[in-house]
Amino acid sequence: MQKDNDFVKEISSKEEDFSQWYVDIVRKAELADYTTIKGCMVIRPYGYGLWENMQAGLDRRIKETGHKNAYFPLFIPESLLNKEAEHVEGFAPEVAWVTYGGKEKLEERMAVRPTSEAIICSLYSKWVKSWRDLPILINQWVNIVRWEKVTRLFLRTTEFLWQEGHTVHKSKEEAEEETLKILNQVYRDYIESDLAIPVIVGRKTEKEKFAGALHTYTLEALMTDGKVLQAGTSHNLGQNFARAFNIKFLDEDQKEKYVWQTSWGTTTRLIGAIVMVHGDERGLKLPPKVAPIQVIIIPIIFDQSKQKVLEKVAQLKSRLQSNFRVEIDKRDEYTPGWKFNHWELKGVPLRIEVGPKDIEKGQVIVVRRDNSQKMTVKEENLIEIINKSLKDIQENLFQKAKQFLEENIREVANFEEFKEIIEEKRGLIRTYWCGNRDCEEKVKEETKATIRCIPFKQEKTSGKCIYCGKESSTLVYFARAY
Amino acid sequence: MQKDNDFVKEISSKEEDFSQWYVDIVRKAELADYTTIKGCMVIRPYGYGLWENMQAGLDRRIKETGHKNAYFPLFIPESLLNKEAEHVEGFAPEVAWVTYGGKEKLEERMAVRPTSEAIICSLYSKWVKSWRDLPILINQWVNIVRWEKVTRLFLRTTEFLWQEGHTVHKSKEEAEEETLKILNQVYRDYIESDLAIPVIVGRKTEKEKFAGALHTYTLEALMTDGKVLQAGTSHNLGQNFARAFNIKFLDEDQKEKYVWQTSWGTTTRLIGAIVMVHGDERGLKLPPKVAPIQVIIIPIIFDQSKQKVLEKVAQLKSRLQSNFRVEIDKRDEYTPGWKFNHWELKGVPLRIEVGPKDIEKGQVIVVRRDNSQKMTVKEENLIEIINKSLKDIQENLFQKAKQFLEENIREVANFEEFKEIIEEKRGLIRTYWCGNRDCEEKVKEETKATIRCIPFKQEKTSGKCIYCGKESSTLVYFARAY
Repeated sequence: MQKDNDFVKEISSKEEDFSQWYVDIVRKAELADYTTIKGCMVIRPYGYGLWENMQAGLDRRIKETGHKNAYFPLFIPESLLNKEAEHVEGFAPEVAWVTYGGKEKLEERMAVRPTSEAIICSLYSKWVKSWRDLPILINQWVNIVRWEKVTRLFLRTTEFLWQEGHTVHKSKEEAEEETLKILNQVYRDYIESDLAIPVIVGRKTEKEKFAGALHTYTLEALMTDGKVLQAGTSHNLGQNFARAFNIKFLDEDQKEKYVWQTSWGTTTRLIGAIVMVHGDERGLKLPPKVAPIQVIIIPIIFDQSKQKVLEKVAQLKSRLQSNFRVEIDKRDEYTPGWKFNHWELKGVPLRIEVGPKDIEKGQVIVVRRDNSQKMTVKEENLIEIINKSLKDIQENLFQKAKQFLEENIREVANFEEFKEIIEEKRGLIRTYWCGNRDCEEKVKEETKATIRCIPFKQEKTSGKCIYCGKESSTLVYFARAY
Repeated sequence: MQKDNDFVKEISSKEEDFSQWYVDIVRKAELADYTTIKGCMVIRPYGYGLWENMQAGLDRRIKETGHKNAYFPLFIPESLLNKEAEHVEGFAPEVAWVTYGGKEKLEERMAVRPTSEAIICSLYSKWVKSWRDLPILINQWVNIVRWEKVTRLFLRTTEFLWQEGHTVHKSKEEAEEETLKILNQVYRDYIESDLAIPVIVGRKTEKEKFAGALHTYTLEALMTDGKVLQAGTSHNLGQNFARAFNIKFLDEDQKEKYVWQTSWGTTTRLIGAIVMVHGDERGLKLPPKVAPIQVIIIPIIFDQSKQKVLEKVAQLKSRLQSNFRVEIDKRDEYTPGWKFNHWELKGVPLRIEVGPKDIEKGQVIVVRRDNSQKMTVKEENLIEIINKSLKDIQENLFQKAKQFLEENIREVANFEEFKEIIEEKRGLIRTYWCGNRDCEEKVKEETKATIRCIPFKQEKTSGKCIYCGKESSTLVYFARAY
């Protein structure tokens, strides 16, 4: 029989080797695995179950704000990708190219979509004629390919899954409103409420914005190793693509005008964020709202009482399953202790233990994954206690992450201190920046830290640019990022 | 203002040009459209909404039978695809090949998945060790690419969407049981109950089976032009892939054995089947269970009563929307008559008309799409009537299609009659076949008809092979197919 601590030992220490700890968790919890194809991962059923719950929560918000899903082609002819100059410059280096169809060499090679602006705009130019056709509010859930040199499970892979929204509006104001609505009402609410990950929101610098956009808004999350991860972006495309793809409409005033557009996306890398924000030495901690299994029932089996215990847990499951995502682990090749570790590694929010003595007393043991709290619960109170505990866990994960984020936003007196903190403590540094791209690039060269965003919340004060010392009123967040 | 019949005139006659009628419906109802990429379509929001409802029904059945979703890579290295000889022979001619990643030429070119057996088996060979790891019951919802020469929206496109199940079992019997469970309990129930399309089920001949399978089961549906469409297939892969990919397990008897596998799929071409089975001269007729909009409310607007009518329809919608998928068409650039045609073209099962006189009488007009039946309904009975009508429409569509199928299964006295019927009436011909591949191929050459399946229901009689005249007890269905 497999003993208690077998596999937990196989996980690297989070403290000592965060990177390897991350890979161990992702693989041992069976979220994803490597394949023989360089940079491509397989998302295993447990990881995909998590993704399905994440999708459900985000898809609901996308639809509630008036968007509809559609599906655009995987392939983009090279000439189409070339239409918007900045866009192609940004994406061409990482495009996978199809050059043969069966035995035939293609006349024009085709990009496997690295993002879909080009193909979608080519269709919008056919669909949009009058102001009555606007707005167009479309989203799609698809696979994306970017030929990455260095890859990491979920965080940076050659192929990943995402949703990408692409909208068309008749005015600049409406496009800006949409860009911000997606950022705050859709993405921020999804990431904070469902994934329990607090974010900092703001605008990207010119250097960091999306290739082809007017400007890009972003949500940035802090991982527990002190590095930051871009959790989602929302782009105001202005009229750049409208001009490149000739998307015009006849307005109410009978004048022909270029449309205004937005695009926005979040990806499977958020699964990586969940691992890195909430996980601990023992494994995953999944937020209850998206956990594939919210409650795992472990029968405590002795020979004489086996039948009785198995009947009881089956009964419990059937009572609970209309309210919760619940499973029983009744494998008999593993000890209960092994199973406790196994399901902790998998991050299941609540464990229920049922032994013969519990049955006699009409009770079960409930254990929380987030804080190891153990409760003896009378059967008649079980649904209520589970409900409350799942809510508490969701809130507790968020509050803990929020406290960690707040504790790791620092201000610095000068660039020397900046370098020291970035090297030793990491986290976010909140400081002034003169707005000059040179300073931004120099800081990156010297510290590997980039400007994550220019937060919406600015102050009426000013200070010295962290690099050149010039007086500026622009506060930014610097950090090393995934 | 747009007049009543403007666009219905733009649809080709179903009677006179079925092919063009089909394309017109798909495009005018905004299910899908062509793109600049040869053979690739865009699935528009209305078509994708239909697909989402189809997915929901099938995904539920797939999960209820114990399967879980996952995601495997889009790319398959050529060497992996080459491992199973029959498989690569069947698929290589239609593979799109990626040869460049960014500016770098790849050492080994990669297939864009034409189906995923090869990549999935390469992982199963790592995952499967013991009998305790079995069965593996996995499904994925993904895009697929096959380089087709002649394409038609939904029916045959270079890229399409599908689900593909891939399971692993410890015995031949269990694999066969799975193959049949998917065919009957999952696919047949989904296609007949949700899509209202009756099917004939049976086994494919050796010639028509899946490349690499032991045998293939199929569901065949009859379109209203007399041609047949393969609606789904379920393959017993035997141990062919297990041997090619070395997938072995240590059984309870401590012996190492090859696993037994199945795979099965249904695609977006079923959307095409819905169009061709249920549609009529006026457009789509969508089965209520999968219709993106089940009820469309049309306010009948006159200047004086406009406000009152708009308030009433808003009220109605908010009352109905917790039970039904309901929308209001309150655009004022179109007449009510134009809107009736428009939503009939889009196949919405029920239309509700509300005018000022109806409000005075506390009633609405309800019109069924399937048989044009018009009902005056008291407001208090509305939910009940809609519920009943949607059920009736679902059942009526199925019964009508079933009757058409039964009327178009014919028996023939000889090959002359066979040719005549295939040419003039089409439909299915139920006849004997000697089992010889030569006869099968000759019939195809001379009539374009193929053996659609060897039905499970055989009789104890025998008869003459339709081509060579040899005595045989094997009944088969011949038809021309999409």
